[in-house]
Amino acid sequence: MSAFPVPPPFEPDSAVFRAHEGGKLGVHATQPLRGREDLALLYTPGVAEVSLAVAADPTLAMRYTARGNTVAVVSDGSAVLGLGDIGPLGALPVMEGKAVLFKHFAGVDAVPLVMETGSVDELVEAVARVAPSYGGINLEDISAPRCFEIEERLVERLDIPVFHDDQHGTAIVVLAGLLNAVQVLGRRLEDLRVVVAGAGAAGVAVTRLLQRAGVRDVVVCDSRGIIHPSRQDLGEHKRRLAVSTNPRGLTGPLATALLGADCYVGVSGGTVPEEQVATMAPEGIVFALANPTPEVHPEVARRHAAVVATGRSDFPNQINNVLAFPGIFRGALDAGATRITEAMKLAAARAIAEAVDAPSPERIVPSVFQEGVADAVAEAVRTLAPVALHRTDPVR
Amino acid sequence: MSAFPVPPPFEPDSAVFRAHEGGKLGVHATQPLRGREDLALLYTPGVAEVSLAVAADPTLAMRYTARGNTVAVVSDGSAVLGLGDIGPLGALPVMEGKAVLFKHFAGVDAVPLVMETGSVDELVEAVARVAPSYGGINLEDISAPRCFEIEERLVERLDIPVFHDDQHGTAIVVLAGLLNAVQVLGRRLEDLRVVVAGAGAAGVAVTRLLQRAGVRDVVVCDSRGIIHPSRQDLGEHKRRLAVSTNPRGLTGPLATALLGADCYVGVSGGTVPEEQVATMAPEGIVFALANPTPEVHPEVARRHAAVVATGRSDFPNQINNVLAFPGIFRGALDAGATRITEAMKLAAARAIAEAVDAPSPERIVPSVFQEGVADAVAEAVRTLAPVALHRTDPVR
Repeated sequence: MSAFPVPPPFEPDSAVFRAHEGGKLGVHATQPLRGREDLALLYTPGVAEVSLAVAADPTLAMRYTARGNTVAVVSDGSAVLGLGDIGPLGALPVMEGKAVLFKHFAGVDAVPLVMETGSVDELVEAVARVAPSYGGINLEDISAPRCFEIEERLVERLDIPVFHDDQHGTAIVVLAGLLNAVQVLGRRLEDLRVVVAGAGAAGVAVTRLLQRAGVRDVVVCDSRGIIHPSRQDLGEHKRRLAVSTNPRGLTGPLATALLGADCYVGVSGGTVPEEQVATMAPEGIVFALANPTPEVHPEVARRHAAVVATGRSDFPNQINNVLAFPGIFRGALDAGATRITEAMKLAAARAIAEAVDAPSPERIVPSVFQEGVADAVAEAVRTLAPVALHRTDPVR
Repeated sequence: MSAFPVPPPFEPDSAVFRAHEGGKLGVHATQPLRGREDLALLYTPGVAEVSLAVAADPTLAMRYTARGNTVAVVSDGSAVLGLGDIGPLGALPVMEGKAVLFKHFAGVDAVPLVMETGSVDELVEAVARVAPSYGGINLEDISAPRCFEIEERLVERLDIPVFHDDQHGTAIVVLAGLLNAVQVLGRRLEDLRVVVAGAGAAGVAVTRLLQRAGVRDVVVCDSRGIIHPSRQDLGEHKRRLAVSTNPRGLTGPLATALLGADCYVGVSGGTVPEEQVATMAPEGIVFALANPTPEVHPEVARRHAAVVATGRSDFPNQINNVLAFPGIFRGALDAGATRITEAMKLAAARAIAEAVDAPSPERIVPSVFQEGVADAVAEAVRTLAPVALHRTDPVR
């Protein structure tokens, strides 16, 4: 068996297990089935007309099937929450939870699609094979670096949006928070020195999106310290990071990167001691996003930094992907988007940032349950979405 | 493009297209999400406990996820209704309709899983890869003979029920009807001469199940006539039929097989002229199941046969798979079945037959909307289901 944490005692009478009894999702018909007449409309013989029309013009599938509102939440369970490789069945409760959030926040019908672990080729093949069932693919909790190639290849192969939430959802909400943080502090993204601690799915995507948004000086650290081109231990995605980041050519441990830095983004699951946070530049920004234990306790960080955010709901400024992914897919589905572009991600971040009425150091992102955030994100994303040319004539 | 019938004009304002607007299925949460406390139960951090428990004991997935009530309706769209190879998107409206029936008749949460066409290997691989998402697999509208190998290999590989409805659903309802027909006529299955016209998915499965139920003399015909071992044009599945059927060693056209036959089961899409029906033995049974056009019009058949059934709702004795598949999966899921066995199929057929209070020539099967049929089938199936040994201790 794979190494994952020893489970707590199985307590079927606890609130958590009771809330999961029978699962968290159901399927329902959207049309009444009252008798033979309805049956003849919804099934044979009526459905044959719809099937033939869709077969002749496949773009009609988005209109006349649930595909246009359905997203698969895909995982092989190889990197679930902080739990590690717990396999597809272990991942299933998380993917159902994600589907609940899709529905609640954006009215998207999401269904879990958990997969036996396999090679990148095998996972890509399987997802591509079943993709006609869905209007979008949300990848989730797939281990790095496999997740990068899986997403890239699916994006290339499919004409529906493919979005790895652990990468881009996190990056979008981090950027949203940073946009408000610099506004609060009277700074500019272009002038910041940013340290990203963690070079997994989230770290890579955060780095890329911050650069795309205008940040020039990003230094990325993994567990062995600063990523720079002369390191011999880097896999492909880290080699790419090494050449596209670290403009001052730093080497050494995280502590070296933090010295005089304006912003720390922790997506590592590691820790950073108070002494090192204290060496950051004045009026600093600390995003300590490891869950459930932030890299530095937010009250400790607040002694040295002007703005502090975590992934937790019990401190100010919760950086939570749920601010992004429901609205992003809502907008993409409504547009009939073929991809989620960088421009859409930037627009989503700006929409989340703008959903905060009066940003302050204690309020750089909306609360998870603030009304209207998903709608605003959807609207921002929808207008930028690339769409396929619509085929108006049945082609035989 | 593949050759399928020219679609009728696309009429978005027709009742059929209006009933399909936006699709026929939705997903909903079964638990309330009222705020942070619910979020902490249904998603992080609470869900981690459930995920770890399931990872440690995978049998818990049936209890604590929707998997235990979820069936994938799988098709590559290669043989949809009578329409032929209309592809996965063309098939999607049919699979959604099927999912509506699963829910309506048996409370099963079914989701369409339509797939790009590929080789048998590719389809088996993809379905097996995503199987952890589901408690059962309903195969649908996959062309013969691929459907036989796909089903066999998935049954062998997976520990959840895999059921090709075009084969077994049809066979079960045919047997149910035949059980009541012989009762009405005071005959025995063992004494019948049966002709099955059609050696595709339905014909093969009907033949096997009738034999399993006690019929000794089955002659199967394809478009070239009676299947017998000396024919040189038979693929593997027809060669198997050739050796297991046709005990009197008949050769020649369908007309030869019908001469003196007691029962005709048409699952061919072809036609049979009245003169040939007239050559059957007295007190005959005719199941003309091609849709929408029966192989012989039921009023014509009734001039020569004592019991006549079709696939249509506007004549007596509608042989419709919906009498079988919802209850079969309901029972299998409730039992935690690992397979659908021959015994379960026979029991389902008997339960359907017994759901008719007073069988008569005009009433050998229940009507599609008769209450309680799916429950009776589920009960009959559940008690016979093979189940995996339950793992009670977390295994690491």
